[in-house]
Amino acid sequence: MTISEFLGIELPIIQAPMAGVQGSAMTTAVSNAGGLGSLPCAMLTPESMRAELQAITAGTARPYNVNFFCHAPPVPDAARDRRWQEALAPYYAEFGIDASTIAPGGGRAPFSDEVADVLAAFRPPVVSFHFGLPSPALLQRVKSWGAKVLASATTVAEARWLEANGADAIIAQGLEAGGHRGIFLSDDLTTQIGTMALLPQVLRAVRVPVIAAGGIADAQGVRAALALGAAGVQIGTSYLLCPEATTTALHRAALQSPRAEHTVLTNLITGRPARGILNRLMKELGPIGEAAPAFPLTTAALVPLKAAAERQGRDDFSTLWSGQNASGCREIPAAELTRLLAGA
Amino acid sequence: MTISEFLGIELPIIQAPMAGVQGSAMTTAVSNAGGLGSLPCAMLTPESMRAELQAITAGTARPYNVNFFCHAPPVPDAARDRRWQEALAPYYAEFGIDASTIAPGGGRAPFSDEVADVLAAFRPPVVSFHFGLPSPALLQRVKSWGAKVLASATTVAEARWLEANGADAIIAQGLEAGGHRGIFLSDDLTTQIGTMALLPQVLRAVRVPVIAAGGIADAQGVRAALALGAAGVQIGTSYLLCPEATTTALHRAALQSPRAEHTVLTNLITGRPARGILNRLMKELGPIGEAAPAFPLTTAALVPLKAAAERQGRDDFSTLWSGQNASGCREIPAAELTRLLAGA
Repeated sequence: MTISEFLGIELPIIQAPMAGVQGSAMTTAVSNAGGLGSLPCAMLTPESMRAELQAITAGTARPYNVNFFCHAPPVPDAARDRRWQEALAPYYAEFGIDASTIAPGGGRAPFSDEVADVLAAFRPPVVSFHFGLPSPALLQRVKSWGAKVLASATTVAEARWLEANGADAIIAQGLEAGGHRGIFLSDDLTTQIGTMALLPQVLRAVRVPVIAAGGIADAQGVRAALALGAAGVQIGTSYLLCPEATTTALHRAALQSPRAEHTVLTNLITGRPARGILNRLMKELGPIGEAAPAFPLTTAALVPLKAAAERQGRDDFSTLWSGQNASGCREIPAAELTRLLAGA
Repeated sequence: MTISEFLGIELPIIQAPMAGVQGSAMTTAVSNAGGLGSLPCAMLTPESMRAELQAITAGTARPYNVNFFCHAPPVPDAARDRRWQEALAPYYAEFGIDASTIAPGGGRAPFSDEVADVLAAFRPPVVSFHFGLPSPALLQRVKSWGAKVLASATTVAEARWLEANGADAIIAQGLEAGGHRGIFLSDDLTTQIGTMALLPQVLRAVRVPVIAAGGIADAQGVRAALALGAAGVQIGTSYLLCPEATTTALHRAALQSPRAEHTVLTNLITGRPARGILNRLMKELGPIGEAAPAFPLTTAALVPLKAAAERQGRDDFSTLWSGQNASGCREIPAAELTRLLAGA
């Protein structure tokens, strides 16, 4: 079954939820164009989520997706926090920042009953999860209003697990993909495989529809993924230059520069491995650092550094998520891009 | 231009040269089936290469490919050799091996004038190189008899370099691929990208034909790569169970087991990063080790360990090259597999 039939949309295109660089404007535009627009909720408070959902339901009558993280809340670790502070100390000195004034926190909450309460009023037709699935009871709540549940697998084992635990469709996230890896059954990054290898193996392992993600940037990539047997595709990076995206000017510039040819998996930004354009922090500390606190506690210590560097026009500590194929980025409205991607 | 037109073959399928697991029997079978059979020459002496070329030219009148490494010969480093011996010392003790009796060496010679002398008598129609290209003079010798030159790129920068330096077609080797990474402009493995991302970007960067490699295992994968714009595909792993392959019984068993789902890039086998199924050595030392001597000097110290473990039916130190998608392996003749891959 194609994802279009399965989700009741016109085109086999899901716009990947991208926390921090898009809100409801992107969601609405893509859904109205016939794709599936997504709202990333991991960084929203229940109040702002409600406002965004009101905007979406006012802006489109078509299906849309809301996306959540479902990580286990981190256990604070004072020794690790100290190592992280020490690793960043030279940067605090360079930018004249008093590290003792930094507020702790992570700003990314897992899916919860409180969030489900807000969601229930809107009954979103599609809900997607990253880092596994929420508890069976929470998953049941989401399904109780008829929502289709999508979840990301980065290995064949994760795909089997997600199908067995109630996912209605699986996003096979190849390691080309930008942003957070969905990896949740292991923390061994050598298990992560490319879309061309992951997709066929997931298709053999599960019976639910499989959506391809990772490295797909244009209509030719979409055709290739469908030829490989995908029921549809999920695309993120290509949307980052659309006017509806809230991508910063520094991030937009990096995406349009030769630097976009070199992305890395890094845990330095949030504590979990995510793919972005190599910046000074990753270059100097190495992209995967033992000192980075557990997700999402890594983020707080970087906030003042990001801000100070960005004031100088530098992306030394910035979040520059991108997949390994930024060649499909276009400065055109998200609706137009969606139709182009579908070859429509 | 399709690779079939470019090379004068019937099907857009190149059988990847796989040193150590195949010889002329595979080459001939694939070429006779309408694909491009390859002979890996990196581990052959000039004499055995001559014998293999005689077998191929007696066995087929169709185009075939001979493949060479073109690495810089390693500079011996006594301190690094010692660290490598120390890392392996517990294993020598376990298997009762006297490490002082191990003969040094690497067994993999780069392309040279001596090799070209042998080759010139056969005028092979296609010559492919891994790890860059040989010297301009050597490349000119190869081209002087009309050979088409293929070379592997693992990044967009490498593809541009290869085109500028005389490659007639480029193999875009996505990181899904098994065996040695062709990487040669850098030793930074974070630059390595998946086929789905690499291929479209290489296609935009060069004007010569581009062949897709990495993660392509069956006819659906071939169709997807062609849909993505590849002029043809190069496939290795899927051929490893063919009767013409000299794949060991241990290697065949690993490929057919769930272990094949987890391959790693490792430098522990030869000193250069190559992809294979995780074995005990990689698990215990970590797949990328600082102690491993420069390519190909890593190999000698492992020879007696491999032999001793294999006598016990164990692949603890064995070479188990495989790409990230072994799902296309079939115990059928290489000719039949070639036609299946082409959907013919």
